[in-house]
Amino acid sequence: MWTSVNLAIDAGVAIGAHPGYPDLQGFGRRDMGLSAKEVYVYVLYQIGALSGFLRSAGTTLHHLKPHGALYNRAAVDPEIAHAIVQAVADFDPALALYAPFASCMANAGGESGLTVCHEVFADRRYEADGRLTPRRHPDALIEDPEEACEQVLTMICDGKVRARTGEWVEVRADTVCLHGDGTGALAFAKRIRDRLAAAGVRVATYTNA
Amino acid sequence: MWTSVNLAIDAGVAIGAHPGYPDLQGFGRRDMGLSAKEVYVYVLYQIGALSGFLRSAGTTLHHLKPHGALYNRAAVDPEIAHAIVQAVADFDPALALYAPFASCMANAGGESGLTVCHEVFADRRYEADGRLTPRRHPDALIEDPEEACEQVLTMICDGKVRARTGEWVEVRADTVCLHGDGTGALAFAKRIRDRLAAAGVRVATYTNA
Amino acid sequence: MWTSVNLAIDAGVAIGAHPGYPDLQGFGRRDMGLSAKEVYVYVLYQIGALSGFLRSAGTTLHHLKPHGALYNRAAVDPEIAHAIVQAVADFDPALALYAPFASCMANAGGESGLTVCHEVFADRRYEADGRLTPRRHPDALIEDPEEACEQVLTMICDGKVRARTGEWVEVRADTVCLHGDGTGALAFAKRIRDRLAAAGVRVATYTNA
Amino acid sequence: MWTSVNLAIDAGVAIGAHPGYPDLQGFGRRDMGLSAKEVYVYVLYQIGALSGFLRSAGTTLHHLKPHGALYNRAAVDPEIAHAIVQAVADFDPALALYAPFASCMANAGGESGLTVCHEVFADRRYEADGRLTPRRHPDALIEDPEEACEQVLTMICDGKVRARTGEWVEVRADTVCLHGDGTGALAFAKRIRDRLAAAGVRVATYTNA
Repeated sequence: MWTSVNLAIDAGVAIGAHPGYPDLQGFGRRDMGLSAKEVYVYVLYQIGALSGFLRSAGTTLHHLKPHGALYNRAAVDPEIAHAIVQAVADFDPALALYAPFASCMANAGGESGLTVCHEVFADRRYEADGRLTPRRHPDALIEDPEEACEQVLTMICDGKVRARTGEWVEVRADTVCLHGDGTGALAFAKRIRDRLAAAGVRVATYTNA
Repeated sequence: MWTSVNLAIDAGVAIGAHPGYPDLQGFGRRDMGLSAKEVYVYVLYQIGALSGFLRSAGTTLHHLKPHGALYNRAAVDPEIAHAIVQAVADFDPALALYAPFASCMANAGGESGLTVCHEVFADRRYEADGRLTPRRHPDALIEDPEEACEQVLTMICDGKVRARTGEWVEVRADTVCLHGDGTGALAFAKRIRDRLAAAGVRVATYTNA
Repeated sequence: MWTSVNLAIDAGVAIGAHPGYPDLQGFGRRDMGLSAKEVYVYVLYQIGALSGFLRSAGTTLHHLKPHGALYNRAAVDPEIAHAIVQAVADFDPALALYAPFASCMANAGGESGLTVCHEVFADRRYEADGRLTPRRHPDALIEDPEEACEQVLTMICDGKVRARTGEWVEVRADTVCLHGDGTGALAFAKRIRDRLAAAGVRVATYTNA
Repeated sequence: MWTSVNLAIDAGVAIGAHPGYPDLQGFGRRDMGLSAKEVYVYVLYQIGALSGFLRSAGTTLHHLKPHGALYNRAAVDPEIAHAIVQAVADFDPALALYAPFASCMANAGGESGLTVCHEVFADRRYEADGRLTPRRHPDALIEDPEEACEQVLTMICDGKVRARTGEWVEVRADTVCLHGDGTGALAFAKRIRDRLAAAGVRVATYTNA
């Protein structure tokens, strides 16, 4: 029977799981004091549930990227990062892990032998220590599409990003996150894609090969 | 990492999914007017989530049995029965389907080529049409353990059960359901097992072979 | 502290409770087999929760109207209608009850001494027995704003509505329901209000006086 | 219609609200990074919902005590403490607030003019700074009923408690919390009550008079 995942599959999208905290009212954007064991169980639960739909559609999961507050926590908390990595490895060690460059999550994934795909954000500002500027900060978002495109190209081609306070920070950009819930999201995605093509950057499903 | 499914696996239990209506407050025991498509999606979701835990523990699902009000609905509603069967078939056609003898669910499973394992209830009374006496009826439950044991043996060995109103009804008993939430549940399980052994009935994981 | 109810209060809106089934995923639009006692408890719970916000804002509840599938069930099920009415009466017998003319809910409210405010729908088609045409029917919705305005005026001024199959049906229209989730909802509301003003109909908060 | 609050009312119990984090799976025992505004809204919601049942039973709320992780957070976080206090004051400033002696919550309640009822725990160990020993500590619970009774009497009659590390800490004990979910809870409650009676301590509903 047709479910909404079929639409993505037909479009050739590589499907990833995006598990988060069990906080539906807060859309997973509020931190929760969960134990590593609880995080392991919730991640496994959400990977499994999604993979049931993929299996019924004849395909499999490509990658995992934690959602919202869990993503931010795992970037800086080694124990939580390890719990997520272990859930991925126990479910399917062939899954890629999307994580920020030099984060606890990237480190934990690498140590466990997972394929780590380093993620950057097109429209978020960075701090001098390589972390994202928190959303509560007035300069957290890059509003100008042209500036966001420039940041993406510099991250991909030059491996660096200019921090909010002016310093250059080393990054690695294997995948770019665009938020899909703004009104200009589609136009912005097309614009970035055109700029990448013009710069000779090939957009493709990430593989470790 | 250890989860509670490991306990079952270590004890040699064949693990089945027990999906129900998305009604946590009512424990899935209240009927809901869901479409066949909604039932398909909820069943797939729950199978997938459980199978994630099994996969992390190195094992796989053995069977599926709908829970509570969904079980009762699927026994008599061909469209809902078919939606469940299709979810099972789309996820893994090797899964066994537990269903009452001659029910809509058993029929749908058979037509789709699933292995159907016919289920009987040890401590529930039957009506003359082969259905369970509804729980709201004062005689719905068989309180006397000896009477319940007799009912089980007669169903397995003679393929029939005595209805609440006295008639003999044909059944097929491939698996027996015991409710595990009563205080005497464990003693009752041991008693039935002893009676089955004494009658030469072998208790084993169900296979189609 | 400011909550979203303050906005409505400042605009002079009479605030009503809109309790429904405990089915967040289905937005309360799927029928559930609840007992009368369960309905009583859920309605009381939801009235109470809303009234806490109103009390903190220095105002009180004006009326109650069941939501979605519970509204439809209460219109035709005397036991469920009575459970809702009793929850309202036990909480505050001064609350008005919004209910369709000649429905079980209107009858139960009247028998219990509640103020019953008869509700009609601007953009829904009616059947010859006075019920709404079910949403699954292709003609369930009145798409033409002019036709909807005409229906409203005829219901208010003449106490009748033309059924989908052509018959005239008696109704009583004390309040008109407009759905607020369509893109044209605001323009439609203004249009109806203008038409009512032009016809000399005064729009005001409902009172029993 | 009868609901479970009637049982408490008939027994002469003064009923309090026990609002917590919106984390049903974790029973409100896991901390959540909520804003003060979110805490205000959740507390108001839960007070209101409970008061609906009380109102239908002809009684009113007596006090409020935050639950689980929210209680612990409010004891040490002035902003969260203030949000809770404001919800109580906005709902009904006559409600008593149960809070630990010298906590942020007790201070916030006092500043807002609420009646503060200082709470102590019979079977929990205290630290030298007056806080409870965290549950993860092996000595967090007082297992010996006699020792717990002694601690309660000393807190009530002498206004002090011996910390885990030996120091005497000043406390004020207007109400005593007994956990009701252990197997010996009822016997323990009777024992403490007998000891209080023997010491001439009168057990009564707390009032500010």
